[in-house]
Amino acid sequence: MFERPRGTRDFGPEEMAERRKLENILRRTFESYGYHEVMTPTFEHAELFVERSGPGILDEMYTFKDKGGRELSLRPELTAPVMRFYAQDMQRSPKPLKLYYFGPAFRYERPQKGRYREFWQMGLELIGADTPQATAEMISVAYDSMKNAGLKNFRLRIGDVKILKNFLDSIGKNDRDTMRAIDKRDTELPDEIMEFISMNNPEELENHGPEDEVEHYRNVLDLLSSAGVEYVMDLGIARGLDYYTGVVFEIEAPELGAEKQICGGGEYRLAELFGAQPVATSGFAIGFDRTLLALKKDGFKAELKGPDAYVIGSKETISEAFALARKMRNAGCIVEMELTGKGMGKALKKASSIGSKYAVLVGEDEVESGEYTIKDLSSGEQRKMPLEELLSLCPSDKEGY
Amino acid sequence: MFERPRGTRDFGPEEMAERRKLENILRRTFESYGYHEVMTPTFEHAELFVERSGPGILDEMYTFKDKGGRELSLRPELTAPVMRFYAQDMQRSPKPLKLYYFGPAFRYERPQKGRYREFWQMGLELIGADTPQATAEMISVAYDSMKNAGLKNFRLRIGDVKILKNFLDSIGKNDRDTMRAIDKRDTELPDEIMEFISMNNPEELENHGPEDEVEHYRNVLDLLSSAGVEYVMDLGIARGLDYYTGVVFEIEAPELGAEKQICGGGEYRLAELFGAQPVATSGFAIGFDRTLLALKKDGFKAELKGPDAYVIGSKETISEAFALARKMRNAGCIVEMELTGKGMGKALKKASSIGSKYAVLVGEDEVESGEYTIKDLSSGEQRKMPLEELLSLCPSDKEGY
Repeated sequence: MFERPRGTRDFGPEEMAERRKLENILRRTFESYGYHEVMTPTFEHAELFVERSGPGILDEMYTFKDKGGRELSLRPELTAPVMRFYAQDMQRSPKPLKLYYFGPAFRYERPQKGRYREFWQMGLELIGADTPQATAEMISVAYDSMKNAGLKNFRLRIGDVKILKNFLDSIGKNDRDTMRAIDKRDTELPDEIMEFISMNNPEELENHGPEDEVEHYRNVLDLLSSAGVEYVMDLGIARGLDYYTGVVFEIEAPELGAEKQICGGGEYRLAELFGAQPVATSGFAIGFDRTLLALKKDGFKAELKGPDAYVIGSKETISEAFALARKMRNAGCIVEMELTGKGMGKALKKASSIGSKYAVLVGEDEVESGEYTIKDLSSGEQRKMPLEELLSLCPSDKEGY
Repeated sequence: MFERPRGTRDFGPEEMAERRKLENILRRTFESYGYHEVMTPTFEHAELFVERSGPGILDEMYTFKDKGGRELSLRPELTAPVMRFYAQDMQRSPKPLKLYYFGPAFRYERPQKGRYREFWQMGLELIGADTPQATAEMISVAYDSMKNAGLKNFRLRIGDVKILKNFLDSIGKNDRDTMRAIDKRDTELPDEIMEFISMNNPEELENHGPEDEVEHYRNVLDLLSSAGVEYVMDLGIARGLDYYTGVVFEIEAPELGAEKQICGGGEYRLAELFGAQPVATSGFAIGFDRTLLALKKDGFKAELKGPDAYVIGSKETISEAFALARKMRNAGCIVEMELTGKGMGKALKKASSIGSKYAVLVGEDEVESGEYTIKDLSSGEQRKMPLEELLSLCPSDKEGY
């Protein structure tokens, strides 16, 4: 017996229906802001991720060799690949560029509860705009994603690493260890830092700097307030990675406990690292699996759709039944037919058990008369109708074909 | 400058729109037959693929080690993973099981024209049904996929490996080399074999066997004919892999030349190999990239949708403009706004250049009066309307939210 690799998952029909439902809600939200989808390879040169995240990332990636001997890694995240794509092919595109992505990322580690070796991210990059409205709009996409998905209980926290670092500079504590401690909140922090990161009103920023960044940050917050986006100010968001330059944000779903962070991002500079001209960029990634987990605690689900009709023929009429089923599908219906040679009684039971709306009986009488027997499987009502009437029952939703 | 790994591709917005369009057509077609989507991990234990395809597959896969020291491979195809999933978790599900998948697969080789190291497959497995109508229906899904996508010139060829092997047995030539030669048609074949595989009328099968298989094969062909599915009979389809048991088929798009095969499948036995109870199975995989290539030669394309509206505020009205844009999005519109601080004239040009239907001007007058100025960017017409009327322009397509 073969098993799926440890730390990975298979998704059956019910789970896939839920995942596609959430994916579509997020896609529509992103697209409602004018973002367009891009896709990059599942693996990249390992150095790309080292450049973004430092050499520590090498221990966290699945890495293997190309025929040419170069090291390739399954992507641990999608921002570096998208910015690599930008640097390689899209630098001349009109700005701002609004790109989104959805796909799997990989983490080489011992599996733990709620953390998988293959997980999905949906995110965006806004390239070439750094006004307050640009940043506020980007944050608003993340907020509306959660709202549109129906997440009831979540918290959007917004900070600014430039203001945070400026403050830490002023007290001689702008170092990696302090940033890490602030990010993780796992050690006791000095009172003066606690006091700073506990500010929750932009008015209190008056004596802090840099001045233009404080103004930018306050403008972003004001825009979000004016549009009805609810958030809390939190200058204790440090976001670990060095390339964040200003406003940063996180969204958490408290009911997920320790794994509560479901989205994070901010303003950053990364294009230069990959050899492109400097360009203002912001973006975020949503942890798709965790978001779905939080939503399911709120009752999120997707119905697995049964067929519109289940066509049942007999040995003598199987050709007619088979041809009818195809006609109905081409008219827009979802149609199954009896495939295992069962008799009428068992076939009707099967039709009900898979949730079909109608059963369509194709016996010799029906073939002769050209009128098919339609049984409504919820009411039990049964009547005869000619082909045309039968086809008119189909939703005829052929757009896109 | 970082580059994408050799033999891989990035897809920009235009290409992604085309890919999603084709993906959706194929999904709808599969779903119109009652198939449900499943998803398996991007990598599997290497042995899984060796079990399906023989040890030669090891040279064609990207393989790396787990933390536990087990060998993992990026999947070179998706049938083995789906059947592994079936064997592991779905053996007790009611039959027939109708499963489909869509995802990337990987090929470790020197890149060549039209062959990529990462490529996409869409396919299905029908588990637990082996009647003629089951097999004919499965083939019909593949045929309708191409029809619904709008492919003009393709050829569905249907053969039967059991009948072929029975014939080769009768002339003492049922060996791998002969099967391979028939499959590839790259060497001269003996006249008696050429004559056999040139039959193109089921009537000619009378003196061939096995009898029940000949009947099954003819029944499958008859069903397809009765439903209007066009095909050619071709007993020279050998399908390489040993696990095919009966009817097999291929679809080719002649305009693709040497890489013309865009779909292949048939009846097979694989569950047992993976430790499951024996079960009749059939299925096929569509080469997504090649199919798209063939379609594009026929003019297939997808429009990259511009926004419904482009909202332009001024320094003084930016909050109102920002809030209005969010309201319109929540009403179902795709809305962009000016994000780089451009003046009105440049912003209007930008709105036109990205294909927006309307520009919505939010000046101080508008804020005061509560009536926004709407400019139709194709006609140039301009008029004022209150918020409610403006929101009624949005398609309000919020189903799924």
